[in-house]
Amino acid sequence: MDADDKIAVGLEGVYVAKSSICKVDGINGKLYYRGYAIEDIAKNSSFEEVCYLLLNGKLPKLAEFEEFKKALYAERDLPEEIVGIISELVGKASPMDILRTAFSALSGFDEKLNDNTEQANMEKSLKIISRISSISAAIGRLESKAQYVKPDKSLSHSQNFLYMLNGKKPEQEKADLLDLMMMLHAEHSSNASTFSTLVTGSTLADIYAAVTSGISTLKGPLHGGADEAALKMMDAIGSPENTERYIDEALAGKQRIMGFGHRVYKTYDPRAKIIRGHLIEIQEHADGKVKNLTGIALAAEKMMVEKLGETKGIWPNVDFFSGPIYAYLGVPGNLFTPLFAASRAPGWCAHMIEYWRNNKLFRPLEYYEGEIDKQYLSIDKR
Amino acid sequence: MDADDKIAVGLEGVYVAKSSICKVDGINGKLYYRGYAIEDIAKNSSFEEVCYLLLNGKLPKLAEFEEFKKALYAERDLPEEIVGIISELVGKASPMDILRTAFSALSGFDEKLNDNTEQANMEKSLKIISRISSISAAIGRLESKAQYVKPDKSLSHSQNFLYMLNGKKPEQEKADLLDLMMMLHAEHSSNASTFSTLVTGSTLADIYAAVTSGISTLKGPLHGGADEAALKMMDAIGSPENTERYIDEALAGKQRIMGFGHRVYKTYDPRAKIIRGHLIEIQEHADGKVKNLTGIALAAEKMMVEKLGETKGIWPNVDFFSGPIYAYLGVPGNLFTPLFAASRAPGWCAHMIEYWRNNKLFRPLEYYEGEIDKQYLSIDKR
Repeated sequence: MDADDKIAVGLEGVYVAKSSICKVDGINGKLYYRGYAIEDIAKNSSFEEVCYLLLNGKLPKLAEFEEFKKALYAERDLPEEIVGIISELVGKASPMDILRTAFSALSGFDEKLNDNTEQANMEKSLKIISRISSISAAIGRLESKAQYVKPDKSLSHSQNFLYMLNGKKPEQEKADLLDLMMMLHAEHSSNASTFSTLVTGSTLADIYAAVTSGISTLKGPLHGGADEAALKMMDAIGSPENTERYIDEALAGKQRIMGFGHRVYKTYDPRAKIIRGHLIEIQEHADGKVKNLTGIALAAEKMMVEKLGETKGIWPNVDFFSGPIYAYLGVPGNLFTPLFAASRAPGWCAHMIEYWRNNKLFRPLEYYEGEIDKQYLSIDKR
Repeated sequence: MDADDKIAVGLEGVYVAKSSICKVDGINGKLYYRGYAIEDIAKNSSFEEVCYLLLNGKLPKLAEFEEFKKALYAERDLPEEIVGIISELVGKASPMDILRTAFSALSGFDEKLNDNTEQANMEKSLKIISRISSISAAIGRLESKAQYVKPDKSLSHSQNFLYMLNGKKPEQEKADLLDLMMMLHAEHSSNASTFSTLVTGSTLADIYAAVTSGISTLKGPLHGGADEAALKMMDAIGSPENTERYIDEALAGKQRIMGFGHRVYKTYDPRAKIIRGHLIEIQEHADGKVKNLTGIALAAEKMMVEKLGETKGIWPNVDFFSGPIYAYLGVPGNLFTPLFAASRAPGWCAHMIEYWRNNKLFRPLEYYEGEIDKQYLSIDKR
């Protein structure tokens, strides 16, 4: 066996843990959270309920859910030091880097940081979910040169995000659409950011350290950064009429089209299908810029599906249609990935808590292909 | 095949990449950096030269080395915003959490952040190596309620660390010993922190994001946190005479003894051997507290080797003897892991740069063991 056969490149096809959180059926284009089909979740649930479901493994009864929401909403406030760090870094660092930094600093403001019992980690997860969302909204707010807006505990999770971002309570239709987007992004098994969360936590580092790794990992354009990259491409295309020429040229030049293709899905990503339906609705009544974007997105998708779908198994993924939706919600492009982090937080926490039940340090090997026993020569003899 | 056979638990024995940086021969207790035995490195080299070696794959000629050191030392200064973040968090967060946060914030102060060419990443690596060290020393300094001390570019890397920590230039013997410790900790193939660096970077996130994951991961007591944990145990033992009873009781109670056992080494860790030699030297002339610690460490090691070495393959690792050495150098216990991070920075950077040459997103699978197609019931029907 030569070296290449020994390497599990990208860990493709390698199972790293058992899990009962999420099933991705990439062949049939199905996704389940704790056994519930994503289509049912999208139609019936809320981001708050999805958080409960992912963390607790079951849907809540009414009283449980009311208690859960109250506890979640109670954690929204950001310590003033955290707002200070955000203010200090806005304009100097990118929103995703500011989120990573501000979140990392939050560990100092959780009195249960070093309590690694499951109960304490459940409590910390609520803080983490609430506060990543507050930090992300605050970054968007301060980036627009506006004053920090304190959270409003009477609002739902998605309402509060838009309120902290824009300084006014959102229309219900927009809050509902954000709620849907957050549900669709809440969890996706052992993707790179969730996996890096587990690698960090496997050393028995605390849950803040673990989620900081998740945020670090989400930044990459091959992962959470893809939706912003897809929107940038749509901006570069400029209009629905330009789409065909742009895509043809990009494919001829072997450019990667962001938002298409997926390690696990070999068919249409079920989340992209759901978002596409909403995009078509929006297109009806959106104004100029967003209408144009939705036109580009739908034209590009049609072309790509025809050219690469059935023949090459490259289909739209969740990142492709997200940009136009976020644009419709008034979320700026450089806030897409922080918003993705806010949405994925329950997934990261649920996986970490599950993994710690049977923790094993991740410590793989590298295949060494260099020399050994080289002679050390003093610097004048080299 | 049942589920358990499918899972690569902890990725033990799984090769994730080819590498020519480091060879760990766990059976024979040998360690090589770029082909040079750790014993030769320890005897002849310096931390600066090890940085050059790890990053460039070869030992420098004189002129190359002078240029490299100058470039490395030039990057020591911390932006005032970073000193501000450290000051803000000292007393609220742990030193390792402050390092993670302050390092994360540094990305905003590197104008080449988004230049992902190898040349730019080499330059960023020098900044990273220099500044993790400055941040770690500054945290120790500010923790002791003293004023921040600016770096001195005329000093060697280890001299400058001790200078920034203590506010005065160190004795040469101590700087040399720190230099040795930093060399021994500079690299160790695909350990958990290096691996998490690669997972994050595999999304094409930048090198600051990647190293932030490395720092997050190093915190855990099963990884970088082990040396502090070992020192805490020595403190708890109290005196060399108490060692036997303490260890016997701990083993009888199936407690884990930190600083013993290793995923890869099934014999005496060669780094621990080197450090042990220096500990014996120190014991001769150290004063009360450190003398007592070295006595405990050597007594515990003797017992453990006799009881568990040959019979169970559990041997001292690098973390076991580090604590008494650091104590001798005046480094406080809660600064051990930040110092470890400062030492490991060249290893993280070298691996990231190497991995990007043949980048592949890390995206493993989980084995799903839950239900599917569960019926979503409305909340009043649950």
